[in-house]
Amino acid sequence: MSEVSDGAPDAGVTGVLHPGDMGVTVAAACSGTVLWASEGRSVETCARAADASLTDAGDLASLVAEAHIVISVCPPHGAEALAATVADAGFAGCFVDANAVSPATARRIAARFENFVDGSLIGPPAREPGTTRLYLAGPDAARVAAKFAGSLLDARVLDGGDIGAASALKMAYASWTKGTNALLVAVAALAAAEGVSDELTAEWGLSQSGLSQRLTYTAIRSAPKAWRWVGEMDEIADTFASAGLPDGFHRAASEVFARLGEFKNSRSASVEQMLEALLNPAAAAGDAG
Amino acid sequence: MSEVSDGAPDAGVTGVLHPGDMGVTVAAACSGTVLWASEGRSVETCARAADASLTDAGDLASLVAEAHIVISVCPPHGAEALAATVADAGFAGCFVDANAVSPATARRIAARFENFVDGSLIGPPAREPGTTRLYLAGPDAARVAAKFAGSLLDARVLDGGDIGAASALKMAYASWTKGTNALLVAVAALAAAEGVSDELTAEWGLSQSGLSQRLTYTAIRSAPKAWRWVGEMDEIADTFASAGLPDGFHRAASEVFARLGEFKNSRSASVEQMLEALLNPAAAAGDAG
Repeated sequence: MSEVSDGAPDAGVTGVLHPGDMGVTVAAACSGTVLWASEGRSVETCARAADASLTDAGDLASLVAEAHIVISVCPPHGAEALAATVADAGFAGCFVDANAVSPATARRIAARFENFVDGSLIGPPAREPGTTRLYLAGPDAARVAAKFAGSLLDARVLDGGDIGAASALKMAYASWTKGTNALLVAVAALAAAEGVSDELTAEWGLSQSGLSQRLTYTAIRSAPKAWRWVGEMDEIADTFASAGLPDGFHRAASEVFARLGEFKNSRSASVEQMLEALLNPAAAAGDAG
Repeated sequence: MSEVSDGAPDAGVTGVLHPGDMGVTVAAACSGTVLWASEGRSVETCARAADASLTDAGDLASLVAEAHIVISVCPPHGAEALAATVADAGFAGCFVDANAVSPATARRIAARFENFVDGSLIGPPAREPGTTRLYLAGPDAARVAAKFAGSLLDARVLDGGDIGAASALKMAYASWTKGTNALLVAVAALAAAEGVSDELTAEWGLSQSGLSQRLTYTAIRSAPKAWRWVGEMDEIADTFASAGLPDGFHRAASEVFARLGEFKNSRSASVEQMLEALLNPAAAAGDAG
């Protein structure tokens, strides 16, 4: 990285692994040449990469050989394996893990690279301004942030943040947003099991404004993504345990999202389908597909 | 109870155990003579009962001998013991358990009485109209509801609700309201432990409107009541487990509220005091009082 002056925009090449729904918006927001690697990726990912005019390096080894920075955006349960693959391919540049992993996981990944930036993404895929932040921590954070100056992705360096700070922020943030999603659907399942769903809906109407609507929205929008959140809840639970705090909220949330895993290939789910999957996980798994 | 015609207001005598902050409003809303038993109660409870013009039966045995209906309003961890005391005193009327207990606990209590109504209270102490419901289930529910006709307490009979339905509704309702309170303070504690409190507050300001304010409100208003919620969280966790759902959310919530138990005699807590108690439970317990 000797050709890059500290803190100045890097004219070099960035690789993004992988341009999924979120990753493609990270790639599109990044200045300079942005590579991806099509080998083994889905038709949907290929289409997204083409739409964003990314440059196909072909396979991961070629991407690693050409890129100065590699940004990892993947489901959290795959983050360590992907980092290992990049390290094993001999990557000598700056590796950015932007995934929803615990600080401990981030530090384990960091140990594989000479230059590492701890990152995390908060918000939906960055398709309009002001919705999505990329938090960055570590000595090289400013150089990575500079790649996103003026883009739809708001890259923010955590002042004085050590490796792990960006991951910790994501864990704390998602522990509320996704933790409450998991709790809400579990509460609805409990009411259904006890035969008091209508009564709970009526009471919510009196004293918990918007909660029934949130339940419906969670079924429609969140159930299809639940499979990705199992690993994230595990990472969050580990983070709570490391801090000496009860980890049960997110062990339970992990189990809830695991039971919703069958909706991975669905466009949406109804509340009734979601509750059935939660209350009869074995039967529901049999119907999956 | 042969002197009472079904569904008509009962001109008989009701005993309320005990007129705490919530119980005194239940007692005040109940028509006819309302007894309480001052023996062993706190100065605060005596003052509340006097303010509400309740009739002091003296001790529990005298109350039980005179009352046609006894309504139990107490912390959930004391509900079974209180019911046992009433049953052992030879109470032959209708016992109403209005506490935050699991359906299984309600059914165990029911087994002690010939006439039992399963009840639950949702909302704050009933000091103005429209804030607070008393849900009632079981064959004698309508007779109990009639005692509150036209009062500040909105008594509602659960149609076709078996013993346990009112308790189940309370468990499902409080599993969200108090469960999210516990989660929120645990999230804040995690951020503090990881040194990202300011960053989390800033991100909440961008994308989670009102959450920082809710955290402050929870410290001020909820921490002093947390000791009472430990048992309630245990009852909720048992209810989830009985339904085949993950019980970890509320096992964790129980632990969180237990760590806040030191604020029992406080008028309020600051966010900083609350987080200190969560992160250093042993040290905090040493400072309690």
